[in-house]
Amino acid sequence: MKAVLLAAGKGERLEPITHTRPKPFVPILDYPLILRNIEILRRYTRDILIVIDSKHKEYYKVLDNVTLVEQLEGHGTAAALKAVEKHIGKDDEFLVIYADLAFEESAIKNLLNVKGNAILATESQNPKNYGVIIRDSESNLVKIVEKPENPPSNLINAGIYKFTNDIFSYISKIKVSSRGELELTDAVNLIGSKVKVVQYNGFWMDIGRPWDLIEANKFFLDREIDRNLGSIEENVKIKGKAIIEEGAVIKSGTYIEGPVYIGKNATIGPNAYIRPYTVIGSNVKIGAFNEIKESVIMENSKIPHLSYVGDSIICEDVNFGAGTITANLRFDEKEVKVRIRNEIVSSGRKKLGAIVGAHVRTGINVSILPGVKIGAYAWIYPGSIVDRDVEKGEKFIPSYLRRSSSS
Amino acid sequence: MKAVLLAAGKGERLEPITHTRPKPFVPILDYPLILRNIEILRRYTRDILIVIDSKHKEYYKVLDNVTLVEQLEGHGTAAALKAVEKHIGKDDEFLVIYADLAFEESAIKNLLNVKGNAILATESQNPKNYGVIIRDSESNLVKIVEKPENPPSNLINAGIYKFTNDIFSYISKIKVSSRGELELTDAVNLIGSKVKVVQYNGFWMDIGRPWDLIEANKFFLDREIDRNLGSIEENVKIKGKAIIEEGAVIKSGTYIEGPVYIGKNATIGPNAYIRPYTVIGSNVKIGAFNEIKESVIMENSKIPHLSYVGDSIICEDVNFGAGTITANLRFDEKEVKVRIRNEIVSSGRKKLGAIVGAHVRTGINVSILPGVKIGAYAWIYPGSIVDRDVEKGEKFIPSYLRRSSSS
Amino acid sequence: MKAVLLAAGKGERLEPITHTRPKPFVPILDYPLILRNIEILRRYTRDILIVIDSKHKEYYKVLDNVTLVEQLEGHGTAAALKAVEKHIGKDDEFLVIYADLAFEESAIKNLLNVKGNAILATESQNPKNYGVIIRDSESNLVKIVEKPENPPSNLINAGIYKFTNDIFSYISKIKVSSRGELELTDAVNLIGSKVKVVQYNGFWMDIGRPWDLIEANKFFLDREIDRNLGSIEENVKIKGKAIIEEGAVIKSGTYIEGPVYIGKNATIGPNAYIRPYTVIGSNVKIGAFNEIKESVIMENSKIPHLSYVGDSIICEDVNFGAGTITANLRFDEKEVKVRIRNEIVSSGRKKLGAIVGAHVRTGINVSILPGVKIGAYAWIYPGSIVDRDVEKGEKFIPSYLRRSSSS
Repeated sequence: MKAVLLAAGKGERLEPITHTRPKPFVPILDYPLILRNIEILRRYTRDILIVIDSKHKEYYKVLDNVTLVEQLEGHGTAAALKAVEKHIGKDDEFLVIYADLAFEESAIKNLLNVKGNAILATESQNPKNYGVIIRDSESNLVKIVEKPENPPSNLINAGIYKFTNDIFSYISKIKVSSRGELELTDAVNLIGSKVKVVQYNGFWMDIGRPWDLIEANKFFLDREIDRNLGSIEENVKIKGKAIIEEGAVIKSGTYIEGPVYIGKNATIGPNAYIRPYTVIGSNVKIGAFNEIKESVIMENSKIPHLSYVGDSIICEDVNFGAGTITANLRFDEKEVKVRIRNEIVSSGRKKLGAIVGAHVRTGINVSILPGVKIGAYAWIYPGSIVDRDVEKGEKFIPSYLRRSSSS
Repeated sequence: MKAVLLAAGKGERLEPITHTRPKPFVPILDYPLILRNIEILRRYTRDILIVIDSKHKEYYKVLDNVTLVEQLEGHGTAAALKAVEKHIGKDDEFLVIYADLAFEESAIKNLLNVKGNAILATESQNPKNYGVIIRDSESNLVKIVEKPENPPSNLINAGIYKFTNDIFSYISKIKVSSRGELELTDAVNLIGSKVKVVQYNGFWMDIGRPWDLIEANKFFLDREIDRNLGSIEENVKIKGKAIIEEGAVIKSGTYIEGPVYIGKNATIGPNAYIRPYTVIGSNVKIGAFNEIKESVIMENSKIPHLSYVGDSIICEDVNFGAGTITANLRFDEKEVKVRIRNEIVSSGRKKLGAIVGAHVRTGINVSILPGVKIGAYAWIYPGSIVDRDVEKGEKFIPSYLRRSSSS
Repeated sequence: MKAVLLAAGKGERLEPITHTRPKPFVPILDYPLILRNIEILRRYTRDILIVIDSKHKEYYKVLDNVTLVEQLEGHGTAAALKAVEKHIGKDDEFLVIYADLAFEESAIKNLLNVKGNAILATESQNPKNYGVIIRDSESNLVKIVEKPENPPSNLINAGIYKFTNDIFSYISKIKVSSRGELELTDAVNLIGSKVKVVQYNGFWMDIGRPWDLIEANKFFLDREIDRNLGSIEENVKIKGKAIIEEGAVIKSGTYIEGPVYIGKNATIGPNAYIRPYTVIGSNVKIGAFNEIKESVIMENSKIPHLSYVGDSIICEDVNFGAGTITANLRFDEKEVKVRIRNEIVSSGRKKLGAIVGAHVRTGINVSILPGVKIGAYAWIYPGSIVDRDVEKGEKFIPSYLRRSSSS
């Protein structure tokens, strides 16, 4: 049994996180999602193929014992799967998984219990945003309907399949969709009732928008077992679950309300306040008089002094000037909106702070408004009010600070 | 013996505090002044009448066992008293008290020791601002002189009287004053030497301007007995007197310098710094890295992170964005000035911060200058320098932040 | 043996520190440099003469048992030395020392071991900036070459000499230099090979630019012995060496990483964070939620709340508004540049904060950019981004804050 991870997508909706890493490398508890998924698959197969985009090749070289297959032709999930055709034997059954999904092991187990073609289905509160699955009374697929206005059920395509080699002949029959892609679901619809629908009730998440990463980390944090491998100075208060990795130092006067995750060699405090559902990557420094709440702070970043970071994502190697603050609540307490590609969408969250790309530098006393995204490598001038998204590499200076700033 | 509280005034000078409550409802140690006064009066009478303005009716409904009398006609204190005429028996003596005064029980006791009409007099350091009392050698009233340029003494009208039913006939003889009101003191002057002047040396304060509320709270805080009914985590330092009410939680790393009052179910810290003469209302949250000094913070307000609040009044249900700071000292260290109605007046205080109305929301990194008043329900844009008073319900955005804020 | 301290220079390069004190009065561990030097000299002589500028006379009156000589005529070090001619006996040998040097006792000892005229030489990593000494194989002076483009060696003139009375006749022979001064080194060059070059390998520093004061303090802090004469509340963490003087109070929740110096009657905390190589003067207040790193804070200054001060010099009697923050690192991590007189020079430091003159007042939420100098007595308007040097006594208001600041 082989397993194929489809990882060739661009991940634009996850920008700026994907400015510096492919989408499957987003971190869950300081560990890339794709490694987590590979570990699950390894329990069932030694033979893992990953379909990647050429421009991301370097990132994937860190993976051991997998076969990397570049998608050289066509667009879409079916075109991606086609790229592995020559690696699949005539009588092989094989798993196919979208690489940006977070799920639990039972998802795979359930699927393997079935013979022949099968598709994993899971319930969603927002079926409108997914492919909705219609099945007959014997759990055979009737049809996958993409993003229906009026979803017939809340059962959706989980993006995890088992196929026989036949799938390639069905792929050869489908045509490019209206969005210009060869869609794997079109091929699956062609197979139709010979596809078994396998329902799965465990955790499942398509990490499609930046704030999904907060939710995915929350889920895995809740399942993690408390452990402390770091060193904790006196007068540190820890309430609830705190996973503290090797080499991490928690300095005096720090107050931790779990569940929280603190990565390897991270330094916290003195006098820091870490609130529930904060995930701190390795080598991160959270200095004095900082409060961090329900946020993902990636490896090597520094929040040294006098910041409040709430409901935010701070990518790797970011440095916050002293007094940089994220706002995470609108005055009118409505759901925070975010620009995703060229569309303003609601995040569904009343509290959402900033999404800050890797290597960003902010000056002192910077204010970042709710739902703002800052592209990787951007610089934010001291004292700025960042009230709109900032481009990758942009030097953000408010116009009123551009003119000679004083008498 | 009946007691009449005159509570019909508009309280404009106390704005923005009075944007959301009648003046007699200002809180003293998280308890409305009028309830405190009613409790004192209950020790002497079961029969309390309160003359109110129609528009404030709803607020007064919370009071038990009092008779509410709406002032339907005329303006001024005498017109207000007239409203209760039909409730007073022919031979009754009765107390009359302005409802926005803070005083001690002995004020009432002293007055009751005298027969017939009597007026309470107290010494003031600023007699110019009050009705100055001239009495003869046998303590009979000669005259009350309103706000004299050259006060003949520092003995002033304390706004607490005992009258016989005769007062109503004197009221019927007076005319509307130059400011368009029927003045009770004009009627008292008509009675003249048949009014006994009773001197009172206890605490007395007319809460006329916002900062008086800080002083009144200071006085009552000094007289309160230390008690701790809340819960205090480890590594909390408390110096001096701290009154901590039921359900309040003081989190680790908090430093308290008394005297302070912390209301029911308030949460303080972790790592907060509460300095002398701070009065915190019920359900207030003072979060991490906040310093509060000589301020009144009313119920349900939140100062969650990285604020300094000094010599300020923060009304109920306010939310401060992280890093919101009040300035409380001028560079030139002169007395802070405040606009009261349309006049700029000195507060008499070298240190005075902000007066923030109820339900105000401030963005992150907001700066509020000394003596600034922010009307109830106003929103202050992140990063604003608030250098002037803000209207009730105003959305404050500095002009330089209005334009598109960056390149 | 007499000793002559040449202290008549204006110290412009050290502004704004020298806005309120002569250069030799810069503090080393809260103690004027000149007093430290006088103490060293007292071990060898009772007879100390100080050549001063008339306008600084008042400052020097605090010195006991020294002879003050005003330099009334001419400019330059030779003109300064000439001013003491009548105090020097015909057969006297005497020491001459530039008063703004920091050095160790062995510098003097070494020089006194030699007979006749002698000049102290020390090695420098930047000989270009000094007078480079050329000597023959028997350590006799060949020549002092001022600021050579291509220094023949890294041995420089340490500004410490021993002279016989002859020096005055040589001075009478020299002419005014191209920069309009009578240079002592010109006279020394005239003596030539009769001047012994004495090499000195101890600590030596010409405190020429403001940041040199940080380095000089670091050196002496490293040599100081740990002692605690102050009072330390519970829950204070002290790591490494902390010199805490009499009357100093360290409040709970404070975290100190030595080496640090905390002067007499200083108050630190609660919840302050003092990092290595911080030198705090007497009566300084460092309040809650402040982080201070590698900085010199002079006597009577107040950093009361929510500031970060890094790699900075804060002169005496400064008051920082809450939330005033110094930036100490450029986004591009290049060496911080500073304007010295009219030239922009590199400080040689990747981390350098602000140089803040005495009596400065900053408003709340002020941001000061790296390498900015603020003149004594200046006021900085709340919320300002200080992105250029501020003049002595200037009222700094950014132009965008000058206009009416809101709707």
